[in-house]
Amino acid sequence: MRVLLIGASGAVGQAATLGLKHHDIVTAGRNSGDLRVDLMDEASVRAMFDKAGALDAVVCTSGHTHFGPLAEMTPALFRKGLDDKLMGQVNVVLVAQHKVKDGGSITLTSGILDRDPVRKGVNASAVNGALNLFVTAAALEMPRGIRINVVSPGLLDASVKKYDGFFPGHPPVSSARVGLAFTKAVDGALTGKVIAVD
Amino acid sequence: MRVLLIGASGAVGQAATLGLKHHDIVTAGRNSGDLRVDLMDEASVRAMFDKAGALDAVVCTSGHTHFGPLAEMTPALFRKGLDDKLMGQVNVVLVAQHKVKDGGSITLTSGILDRDPVRKGVNASAVNGALNLFVTAAALEMPRGIRINVVSPGLLDASVKKYDGFFPGHPPVSSARVGLAFTKAVDGALTGKVIAVD
Repeated sequence: MRVLLIGASGAVGQAATLGLKHHDIVTAGRNSGDLRVDLMDEASVRAMFDKAGALDAVVCTSGHTHFGPLAEMTPALFRKGLDDKLMGQVNVVLVAQHKVKDGGSITLTSGILDRDPVRKGVNASAVNGALNLFVTAAALEMPRGIRINVVSPGLLDASVKKYDGFFPGHPPVSSARVGLAFTKAVDGALTGKVIAVD
Repeated sequence: MRVLLIGASGAVGQAATLGLKHHDIVTAGRNSGDLRVDLMDEASVRAMFDKAGALDAVVCTSGHTHFGPLAEMTPALFRKGLDDKLMGQVNVVLVAQHKVKDGGSITLTSGILDRDPVRKGVNASAVNGALNLFVTAAALEMPRGIRINVVSPGLLDASVKKYDGFFPGHPPVSSARVGLAFTKAVDGALTGKVIAVD
């Protein structure tokens, strides 16, 4: 299959690369990859798909959220995660539904804070909750047999240092196991599912 | 208890009024109520709390989402629900956490599309999913014993006509039962919970 992997350079993107290595992967990202894209800009997303050509699957592992105390949260800080991780991935789906081949698939990425929240993580919890339910509902409307799922990985072992102290007691999950969730989403038959990796 | 009820004139707000009628209710809304507020404007939210005075509880039943086919959804249409129902309620919490009395409570409103999606409802599903998880995470950081919960009502009998055709096979729930969920949130001991009414 020909797979567009958006966010390939991140920790989850690298895990997805492991799980999709038997496919022909076209990479895309903010600052690296075969194609450059700003997911918050609809025109940039459209241009990426025009350049990518025919695709059997689209996988998006890209998106930042804001980590910080609720007591100091402002609407602007909260919007950061909505604009980046949520709207970025929603923008991908709004274009991809018209571009992916018949019977193809779209896979998004949420994360463990959708089910195991932590202090300073309200924005990520909200964004991940939104992505999970967006996919559940979008699956009801996908045209031409296109499937859509979301992978919700636990704290990756590769990200333990980056998030030091934010996830007390969260067992890290291996990149290999997270990769398998992307294999399941792309090569399997599921649709409308949150594929959790704990 | 002195309760600020935001969105009192809507169908869910009227149900909440039934469940909270033993309390001293101050109403607020876009176009009606003791206080007028634009929840999308942080300054307006702050002004509302300044005028409301001392509060034991804040209940927000306000917020619109965009209903429409995924195939025709644009980023701007999707943002409507994020700006209105999600950011509106988040803005309430960001201010209320500093204003509600010690041991008080905050109650938000999501909805049935967080667990029983329908066609044309992707925006509402995403917004409701975000609200549920936001509350789950925010409960971990509430100061001074303040509780926070979210009521997720099914299709209200009072709203069946308004949403004609959008919710095939959804059993309507009575305003009285939805009211009880708000009683539970305000008078009960729960925190960090999604109180579903099916």
